Amino acid sequence: MRLRNLKNKEEILENSNYLVKIPSDFKGKWNKYFNNDNPIYIEIGMGFGKFIVENALKNPDINYIGIEKLDNVLARCLPRIPEGIDNLAIVRLNALEIDEIFDKEIDRIFLNFSDPWPKKRHSMRRLTSVNFLEKYDKIFCKNKTIYMKTDNRDLFIFSLESFSSYGYVLSDISFDLHSDKEREIITTEYEDKFVKKGIPIYNVVATKLSK
Amino acid sequence: MRLRNLKNKEEILENSNYLVKIPSDFKGKWNKYFNNDNPIYIEIGMGFGKFIVENALKNPDINYIGIEKLDNVLARCLPRIPEGIDNLAIVRLNALEIDEIFDKEIDRIFLNFSDPWPKKRHSMRRLTSVNFLEKYDKIFCKNKTIYMKTDNRDLFIFSLESFSSYGYVLSDISFDLHSDKEREIITTEYEDKFVKKGIPIYNVVATKLSK
Repeated sequence: MRLRNLKNKEEILENSNYLVKIPSDFKGKWNKYFNNDNPIYIEIGMGFGKFIVENALKNPDINYIGIEKLDNVLARCLPRIPEGIDNLAIVRLNALEIDEIFDKEIDRIFLNFSDPWPKKRHSMRRLTSVNFLEKYDKIFCKNKTIYMKTDNRDLFIFSLESFSSYGYVLSDISFDLHSDKEREIITTEYEDKFVKKGIPIYNVVATKLSK
Repeated sequence: MRLRNLKNKEEILENSNYLVKIPSDFKGKWNKYFNNDNPIYIEIGMGFGKFIVENALKNPDINYIGIEKLDNVLARCLPRIPEGIDNLAIVRLNALEIDEIFDKEIDRIFLNFSDPWPKKRHSMRRLTSVNFLEKYDKIFCKNKTIYMKTDNRDLFIFSLESFSSYGYVLSDISFDLHSDKEREIITTEYEDKFVKKGIPIYNVVATKLSK
């Protein structure tokens, strides 16, 4: 996502109550950050934050951590978040470093509309490549659950195969998530645009139970 | 598939060199039927036989067994098969009885355009339901490989989830098999019609390596 550079972005980030300034300080003890032992769900690549903020508001007994690497995105997202959501934290991080800030304490990962990295030589940069699945092993607390949504068919197929070959069991597969009118869906900003244009959204839940 | 009843179908079946009259006689010893130890691939629901006949002609070092339960389909298929294909056999059988004629000797199963059984209460009749996956365990010789093609999205999704929860690893997933022009595809009669109409064909290979 290319955005106009915000001049005061450092100031916005500095002043946010949600942005955790030194997230590695909480590695292995995010329960202390939240001051409770509730499950922790993370969204890698939170974008403008609609999805994770709505989730946090809806499920106060779950802690949510949104991860985003781009300052320009964070600087636009952070000021929009309503004050006082105790079960929400935001972290500025490249996903490659995810195992430097978490240690066996994450219950669920959300991957929403991740970068498809369409070139084959970039496939290891995809957030569902074995490269990342190995990292996720280090941060999941016990059972591993990844919720994925994308509009990109090639990334979806790659991910189904990658999850499956890594021992994940696939469920809740949909090739057109929003065609199911009964289902209550918390969307991302991107997703709303795609759905408006009639672009189908692919969905899968990948689960690996600990032995 | 509903077909006009053929009056002389019993006679056609009786006179075919390909139809194995009492297949259970060869349970555990199909290598004796073929008089060699080549791998055995089966197609469950072979329909009019185009797919399996072309495969047999193309790969003489693999033995092929086509399975079909409907007499009316067999009576139309059998007379069309060219004489003298030594690596081909045809069996009249309901797939439910598959483990009564094979015992740990099958290398690959093809499921092409299987009946989707769309009603939920019929889901155990789908050839990729756990009901059948358990039967396949008994007939596969070592490693298990299922090649599946279908035009039915719901059956495809059901099958991806079913394979995955049974421990199969998914590969070669396509949501539009024929869009890949480079690929050489042996088609079924159904498939040719679908492709002509522009209907996309779903494809997956499910593999479970023996430990």
